[in-house]
Amino acid sequence: MSILVAADFTPGEWDAWLPALAQAMPGEVLLRERDAALAREIDIAIVANPPRGALAGLPQLELVQSLWAGVEGLLADPTLPAGVPLARMVDPAMNEAMAETALWAVLSLQREMFDYARQQREARWLQRPQRTAGETTVAVLGLGQMGRAAALRLVRNGYRVLGWSARPAAIDGVETHHGEATLAAVLGAARIAVNLLPLTSATRGLFDARVLALLPRGASFVNLARGAQVVEADLLAALDRGALRHAVLDVFATEPLPAAHPFWAHPRVTVLPHVAAQTDPRSASMVAAANVAALRAGRALQHLVDRKRGY
Amino acid sequence: MSILVAADFTPGEWDAWLPALAQAMPGEVLLRERDAALAREIDIAIVANPPRGALAGLPQLELVQSLWAGVEGLLADPTLPAGVPLARMVDPAMNEAMAETALWAVLSLQREMFDYARQQREARWLQRPQRTAGETTVAVLGLGQMGRAAALRLVRNGYRVLGWSARPAAIDGVETHHGEATLAAVLGAARIAVNLLPLTSATRGLFDARVLALLPRGASFVNLARGAQVVEADLLAALDRGALRHAVLDVFATEPLPAAHPFWAHPRVTVLPHVAAQTDPRSASMVAAANVAALRAGRALQHLVDRKRGY
Repeated sequence: MSILVAADFTPGEWDAWLPALAQAMPGEVLLRERDAALAREIDIAIVANPPRGALAGLPQLELVQSLWAGVEGLLADPTLPAGVPLARMVDPAMNEAMAETALWAVLSLQREMFDYARQQREARWLQRPQRTAGETTVAVLGLGQMGRAAALRLVRNGYRVLGWSARPAAIDGVETHHGEATLAAVLGAARIAVNLLPLTSATRGLFDARVLALLPRGASFVNLARGAQVVEADLLAALDRGALRHAVLDVFATEPLPAAHPFWAHPRVTVLPHVAAQTDPRSASMVAAANVAALRAGRALQHLVDRKRGY
Repeated sequence: MSILVAADFTPGEWDAWLPALAQAMPGEVLLRERDAALAREIDIAIVANPPRGALAGLPQLELVQSLWAGVEGLLADPTLPAGVPLARMVDPAMNEAMAETALWAVLSLQREMFDYARQQREARWLQRPQRTAGETTVAVLGLGQMGRAAALRLVRNGYRVLGWSARPAAIDGVETHHGEATLAAVLGAARIAVNLLPLTSATRGLFDARVLALLPRGASFVNLARGAQVVEADLLAALDRGALRHAVLDVFATEPLPAAHPFWAHPRVTVLPHVAAQTDPRSASMVAAANVAALRAGRALQHLVDRKRGY
């Protein structure tokens, strides 16, 4: 009974993660390397973007625990063992970090702070009209753990929040809608749309010219989920012709965002380097340890991925 | 019984305020001009930075209602009639706008959003360490209506909040301190200090080199109150030598901030053009109308200024 840790960590990340994992699961043997002899001992894999094939040939494997919330990369690896339970990272600390980033983006857009930043660069003193939170309708797309946390945080700060998800969901204070047929009405009512959908075959490329055009003229778009959900050329075109007012983007089709990409210098785009909710090794290791302990004690595993659904 | 409206409004502001005031107090006669005959009819003055002397020679005056929250300019006018009750604007909508601005500044500083904005200008992809709200101690200086609203908003979003005011105050979830002797301890514990003190003889020039040095190295300063409370040269020096990390400034010694002022282009200063809590003519007119109605009905007036205290 050993745990394989398979990840594309930098040396500095290994230095943060290994001690945090070891401290969270005392008594467990954590392996960074596998050889033929060790492979037969490994019954749990803790993974973060593991190299392809890292989980093949582990006959005793009973649990794959991801340290990241998004598992679309893992699911795309054909060598991922088919019958083994796969658990996502669901860390309350990450949900709160995501809710903070969503709130920051919405507050900045509501109070025109990106416009004031531009004015500062021009040394221009101009007071813009002030809008209240209650006058600002925000659509939160995706009502998983992070979408829920973001929607609740926005409601508690006075916004009118519409929630949208593939399946029905109920959140206190949020007007929720579900299914493809309601997306046009939700986006059509939004001054700000915040994307927190999982990346699946249904959401890849979702935000193309047609869907972005469902937003009212002058609305803003915030992407905190996955870059592959947005057709970047279509988003740029909508910003350039003034159909959309501003975009706050944490994720991109290619990361790191290439230095020559037009998003960097675009006056209506705010670029964040995929930091909307960074995983904290301390809290995430505790969450992983809870599933390890559940497996050892024969209790139910948490946050298992439905491989067909994709999350 | 007529009401004089004395203000330094632009034509556009008059167009917003006069209808809002008229709608909020139907049946009242609102005058923009006064001559000798009308002066004897005027028993209420509604004011917003009135020209000096505008309130002299009104023998029937029973109430001066300010449309602005800060009244230090009025109190500095020696022609302000001595015995007449003076009421400040206390508008719940403005308190919430101020709380939003404080929260936006604190969120931006906690999550290093000003650093990410700088990185974007350099097309630089670099993930910075993430700190939680609970690990972030914010000192709110001034616990009047706006300071209270800001402190409560910060507590509800997970921050550790220390409150400081001249007199004792109690706010749920906030560790409050009062009096000059406790200021050093409050500032010394803060990662971010938010100034919402009233401008009085005690707070004019309060934030000089000595007081700014009470903040820990790397702390940030947010001024949402009055520019005259800060010795701007001392603040610049603290930023330039790295003692302070960043300043978010909505108010300045001279407004509009002169085009040549070093704040505009300073990489560690965020300039807002005095918009932290803009007065909304609709809600502020309702608040003024409540005091007008109270005077007419012989009920107690609200939000009266203690002229000795200065607010």
